[in-house]
Amino acid sequence: MSERIAVIEGDGIGKEVVPAAVDVLEALEVDFEFVSGEAGDAVREATGEALPAETYDLVEGADATLFGAAGDTAADVILPLREAVDSFVNVRPAKAYPGVDALRPETDVVFLRENTEGVYAGHEDRLSEDLSTLTRVVTSSASRELAEYACEFVADGRGPAGDPEEGFTVAHKSNVMRETDGRFRETVLEVAAERGVDADEELMDAFATKLPLDPSQYGVVVCPNLAGDVLSDLAAGLVGGLGLLPSANVGHDNALFEPVHGTAPDIAGEGVANPTAAVLSAALLLEYLGYVEEGQRVRTAVESVLSEGPRTGDLGGDATTDEVTAAIVDRL
Amino acid sequence: MSERIAVIEGDGIGKEVVPAAVDVLEALEVDFEFVSGEAGDAVREATGEALPAETYDLVEGADATLFGAAGDTAADVILPLREAVDSFVNVRPAKAYPGVDALRPETDVVFLRENTEGVYAGHEDRLSEDLSTLTRVVTSSASRELAEYACEFVADGRGPAGDPEEGFTVAHKSNVMRETDGRFRETVLEVAAERGVDADEELMDAFATKLPLDPSQYGVVVCPNLAGDVLSDLAAGLVGGLGLLPSANVGHDNALFEPVHGTAPDIAGEGVANPTAAVLSAALLLEYLGYVEEGQRVRTAVESVLSEGPRTGDLGGDATTDEVTAAIVDRL
Ligand SMILES: CC(C)[C@H](C(=O)O)[C@@H](O)C(=O)O
Ligand SMILES: CC(C)[C@H](C(=O)O)[C@@H](O)C(=O)O
Repeated sequence: MSERIAVIEGDGIGKEVVPAAVDVLEALEVDFEFVSGEAGDAVREATGEALPAETYDLVEGADATLFGAAGDTAADVILPLREAVDSFVNVRPAKAYPGVDALRPETDVVFLRENTEGVYAGHEDRLSEDLSTLTRVVTSSASRELAEYACEFVADGRGPAGDPEEGFTVAHKSNVMRETDGRFRETVLEVAAERGVDADEELMDAFATKLPLDPSQYGVVVCPNLAGDVLSDLAAGLVGGLGLLPSANVGHDNALFEPVHGTAPDIAGEGVANPTAAVLSAALLLEYLGYVEEGQRVRTAVESVLSEGPRTGDLGGDATTDEVTAAIVDRL
Repeated sequence: MSERIAVIEGDGIGKEVVPAAVDVLEALEVDFEFVSGEAGDAVREATGEALPAETYDLVEGADATLFGAAGDTAADVILPLREAVDSFVNVRPAKAYPGVDALRPETDVVFLRENTEGVYAGHEDRLSEDLSTLTRVVTSSASRELAEYACEFVADGRGPAGDPEEGFTVAHKSNVMRETDGRFRETVLEVAAERGVDADEELMDAFATKLPLDPSQYGVVVCPNLAGDVLSDLAAGLVGGLGLLPSANVGHDNALFEPVHGTAPDIAGEGVANPTAAVLSAALLLEYLGYVEEGQRVRTAVESVLSEGPRTGDLGGDATTDEVTAAIVDRL
């Protein structure tokens, strides 16, 4: 039976890089049925809603989703969609590729970001003219689920070292958020100890200093939601920008894949966007659905194109999205 | 009348770099009375309290404080001390110095970090076996006070460009924390508009990507408390580590100055710690107390030693703390 893949291009270069990723998937011998849905700024302008109920339902009912980017409505689209796939972990690999100008070419880190709570649980109140509050939420159950995923991830050799003995680092701010990040830290370290996985820890501010100084000291990094957002974006800056990085929002029996980049309004519509992040997101989708060999083929083709060209403008080349996509398909 | 300076060495290399900074202050024609107080791990071990009431009172009653570092008790010491001086802004310059190996030598950024609220307001609850919450607090009044300070800072030409026309960037996460960071963002931008100061904005995650890619695009950066903690530490990684960076916790008629680094247990007690951050913190103290010319002399002496040596081990040299301090004093 064919798998149903929801395809949400969204706004800006989402309309260019998602079709590129679909082209790559269609070039493989996998039996996917693609179903399109709409979300983002343009839909909100037309209908008043950034995320129409049909799109939410489509994603919820699909086997997996490929998402592009949304503009001003990004949070209104992506946060509910993460819920639609019941995602508890956001997987964000940050790897410097050969041939790409990177500040720290030795960077090869995978962030496993908690994807449901922290400040994103988002209970906010305007208590007076002067005062607003936000209730940050941390549960042992969500922390445990993330940690169990991290332990399996490492045990399966999916960390950057590919070594089942490789441990992980938990980044947090439990010296200040003693009760909430204290709970997160303790739970994650406890699960690691139960599973016999090596785990060390780092305060998130110290991590932000040490990652640029020497990224090779980190592999798999487990973080609360906002820490994962910021620290993985920092890693993106070390490997040469967001144009390259894919991500996976993994749930219990559904998942959503998206490039880490945004809509890039400066180049949108010109057909020159770098499709790498979207194509690598498609590779993660393949692996998630069990097409591990196909995922690896895509990754290898992308790496070969990154080092030999053609290249889009963000990487110093002048190739179009279509030319880069064709080159990737060629090498599959 | 002489100014009363509280001196709290704390733990680890605090006991080495603070005396170095005091040596530098004593070499100038300023009439300071130094009064010592204790805080940190060692005091807690001896007395059960990381921050004895006498120390708190000493700092509260002084004209300014020079603080070193504390170990495991860092938060128990520094957070109350920031309160003792009634500090509303943490000033954190991150500048790459000539002669120092920096990942981004062009970095020259000053973070103005809100110093009283955000997650540091620290109201946490353990609501069930599974669930803990933290109440993050943002007020317009604290945001306004920070923004007014930022506008004066810029107008006085104290930003990296030294240009009263230079604006600032406000970094926040108001797309997720709509009510709290929304309030922060709006208030800061409103004050900037009232004062005729140019202000732009950046989401804190995008800032974390863009700072390593091109630090020259930023000058003065205004942030909520935790964002300032993490983003300024990130900048520290770009200029070659925490060993060099000073900071000022500025209040209404009191202030506390501290190196951004910690206790460095690996080298503590060996007399080889880099005194630069503590000495630059003393320069900030001088300027705060109105000794602007003396502060500038210290800064110039430090820069000259950084580029010509002698150097401590963290900068690839083999000089002792005393040798570096003597070289700085020599050049005053
Ligand atoms: C758009 C925004 C809500 C989102 C987030 O903060 O998670 C984005 O920054 C990301 O990392 O995917
Ligand atoms: C020790 C800790 C509480 C402190 C903070 O988070 O403010 C430190 O990281 C700093 O930046 O001075």
